[in-house]
Amino acid sequence: MGHPHPLNYAFQHRSRFLAELQDFIRFPTISAQPEHAGDLKECAKWLADHLRSIGLKNVRVVPTSGHAIVYADWLQEPALPTVLIYGHYDVQPPDPMNEWQSPPFEPVVRGEQLYGRGASDDKGQMFTHIKALEAYLKTRGMLPVNVRCIFEGEEEIGSPNLTEFLKRNSDALSADVAVVSDTRMLAPDQPALTYAMRGALSLELEIHGAAQDLHSGNFGGAIHNPLQVLCEIIASLHDSAGRIMVPGFYDRVRRWSNEERALMARWGPSDDQILRDAKAKAGWGERGYTLYERTTIRPALTINGITGGYQGSGGKAVIPARAVIKLNFRLVPDQDPFEIDQLFREHIAQLIPNTVTSEVRTTLTAQPALIDRTHPALRAAAIAYRAGFGKAPAFLRSGGTIPVINTLQETFGIPTVLMGFALPDDRMHAPNEKFHLPNFTRGIATSIHFLNEIARTLEGTKTLTFERVGAA
Amino acid sequence: MGHPHPLNYAFQHRSRFLAELQDFIRFPTISAQPEHAGDLKECAKWLADHLRSIGLKNVRVVPTSGHAIVYADWLQEPALPTVLIYGHYDVQPPDPMNEWQSPPFEPVVRGEQLYGRGASDDKGQMFTHIKALEAYLKTRGMLPVNVRCIFEGEEEIGSPNLTEFLKRNSDALSADVAVVSDTRMLAPDQPALTYAMRGALSLELEIHGAAQDLHSGNFGGAIHNPLQVLCEIIASLHDSAGRIMVPGFYDRVRRWSNEERALMARWGPSDDQILRDAKAKAGWGERGYTLYERTTIRPALTINGITGGYQGSGGKAVIPARAVIKLNFRLVPDQDPFEIDQLFREHIAQLIPNTVTSEVRTTLTAQPALIDRTHPALRAAAIAYRAGFGKAPAFLRSGGTIPVINTLQETFGIPTVLMGFALPDDRMHAPNEKFHLPNFTRGIATSIHFLNEIARTLEGTKTLTFERVGAA
Repeated sequence: MGHPHPLNYAFQHRSRFLAELQDFIRFPTISAQPEHAGDLKECAKWLADHLRSIGLKNVRVVPTSGHAIVYADWLQEPALPTVLIYGHYDVQPPDPMNEWQSPPFEPVVRGEQLYGRGASDDKGQMFTHIKALEAYLKTRGMLPVNVRCIFEGEEEIGSPNLTEFLKRNSDALSADVAVVSDTRMLAPDQPALTYAMRGALSLELEIHGAAQDLHSGNFGGAIHNPLQVLCEIIASLHDSAGRIMVPGFYDRVRRWSNEERALMARWGPSDDQILRDAKAKAGWGERGYTLYERTTIRPALTINGITGGYQGSGGKAVIPARAVIKLNFRLVPDQDPFEIDQLFREHIAQLIPNTVTSEVRTTLTAQPALIDRTHPALRAAAIAYRAGFGKAPAFLRSGGTIPVINTLQETFGIPTVLMGFALPDDRMHAPNEKFHLPNFTRGIATSIHFLNEIARTLEGTKTLTFERVGAA
Repeated sequence: MGHPHPLNYAFQHRSRFLAELQDFIRFPTISAQPEHAGDLKECAKWLADHLRSIGLKNVRVVPTSGHAIVYADWLQEPALPTVLIYGHYDVQPPDPMNEWQSPPFEPVVRGEQLYGRGASDDKGQMFTHIKALEAYLKTRGMLPVNVRCIFEGEEEIGSPNLTEFLKRNSDALSADVAVVSDTRMLAPDQPALTYAMRGALSLELEIHGAAQDLHSGNFGGAIHNPLQVLCEIIASLHDSAGRIMVPGFYDRVRRWSNEERALMARWGPSDDQILRDAKAKAGWGERGYTLYERTTIRPALTINGITGGYQGSGGKAVIPARAVIKLNFRLVPDQDPFEIDQLFREHIAQLIPNTVTSEVRTTLTAQPALIDRTHPALRAAAIAYRAGFGKAPAFLRSGGTIPVINTLQETFGIPTVLMGFALPDDRMHAPNEKFHLPNFTRGIATSIHFLNEIARTLEGTKTLTFERVGAA
């Protein structure tokens, strides 16, 4: 009696895999909130134990100045290609809490969906690869390629420590290709390989008015309100054509050929599809571009939150002493987040009226990333998708940001296969985040095929090409 | 051995008076927050018991659809004038909590100040009259005038039930003059009688975008952000000269003569004084008016708070599904809050882009009020101030709003003496609200003198004049 095939093993153990994923989601690993540092620590330990239990070697929980990186590998012959599997075990804050139909960290299955914060971003998606590795190791006792796993706990706060970890250990961590499942497919029956991601720059702008909150009756009309100053500044940052009004902002934005834009129109979602995914009644943004283009090859500026004044029930007649806004730029080749940061600060300094003072804090920077879509690793991924989902993948650009992609290119010179298993309506970053369970199963199968395929495709490959992005 | 004089009684019992005021402040009577309804109920009962204990008659806790009204009186000969003493036992929310040096509902004395929410607005100020009544009743066994006390629990939410209570009981509640201590003096050595208050209109504007929060990477640049829409609308509501850009808004604003403005300049605070009181480095507002004028004879629009998106620590890459702003208009004669409400709603309907939907909720309306400053009751108050503080009062306009003032004029045809004991730096509505304890003592003395003086001044007065305000 031989061992079952890895695919059969994965099918037989699917109930247990789901239960384990639910255990994983139960850790409230909100990296942005310091009070959850202990939860991230426990989750990292759980993850390390889990990787050890499926047969991976050299499992380490690597401390950083923030949240730990979990490392594991399974290395055999140097002649075999090495695949670096990246994922992140941290999640976005679950706010607003009252909009969740079930508690964010008590994962439940309703119909074909698993609900919980991190279900798709990224615990569910990274778990597909972990389970694929288990299926190989428990049936064959080996993997078809060398593998390194790097799972971080700071992706949702911009990976502040990962780059240094990768750079300091670039020899020890050498690989030929990376695979990351943290992106979206177009629809349940249409997988997608992502070949571009936007960069990001997140900032907080704080405005200080009077030294104390003031009675809006006694002082209303005579003292500049920091909330109003904030609104006036925000309003001035877009013109009526949806363009961002920071001088120099568009100087390095790459212009794409008509051929590329035609390809994008063929592969990418239509305006209607994007509006359906967003559950929005109308589009908005920069004139002259489709919604898909506005979210991928064009930069964007989004207000993520404003804090100021009274937010409880009823009213409070107050002119607040201060107001804070959280801003998020999404950047495209060849913009550089550090340069945009400087342009923004200079512009704000010009805008601030002398009735108030201001402070700008940079909270996240990430370079945009482009992947050569003709790379053999992407062909291997396409073959794997066909086997796992019965359909060839579309090639997509993503509007999102995964900071590590650019770092892997810069540090190791390797491309990343962005093999997404999330769906457009999975509500990543929003209440009632979910993971489509058929994609969990098909994702594991796709990963099993991918590891096999990459072994054949990359064997002996020495020179890998990639496109450099970002300002010089 | 005769009884002591009421003034001596007040002096002898000043420590107990302070302890009682602290007991009063300990009730967290935040009328805007439904979870404090029980605290208001307990406080109303405490207040009623207290009024009974000092010798007032017909003490009643009158339930309303909101928070109760506490009534008490002491009526003797119908020939004597009747003074209606109004105050409110509810307070503003204490937010932001972390800026209080001591807990808002654990009153403490530091130096000459009593710190606590409601210390000056209005528990401390209304208590001066209660203690003046006690001083008379405990020494003389009678009052120099008839008195009715009406203390409400909904002033900070716009007195939604008081008008109906007064109108329904207008015969039973007849009076010749009202006195309210809920306003400010100019400085510790400069008392003030307020003869004008602004009206108010508070609104919430809610903007709905997509049906759910969206990932700002995946959708940033293609979906209109409700927070951005809100900022753009708010920014458009003032022009660069500080005027409010709602069509028709200024149509009924009364223009004052140069004589009146010269009087205001003589009596009122200078720009420098207002900036010192506000702890602000520069003024702001409508061109062509002093800061005192901007806060009294000119209307104002203030943003009291914005809620939208992520407000926790760190970042969250989200386009929120909705955003809410709390707005507060201060209105002047002859503006009408109901008409301004309509104009605002029509203007917002024009401004809202078709990418979002909006909702406007009216949360407070109050008419502006003007008091005839030549009325004999104000002369009586001036004499009382001279006796209590050693200085004649200034005549001031206030930028604040006390909804009952206009109602008393409309319903009873009586003027209100606005005899303020708060100081400009008492931080009414802000963290670390306080009451200047020398003003507590002098306020009680002033009230004792006032009751005596009003008995002489108004005895036999039949026709009282008042000025009507507000749109027809």
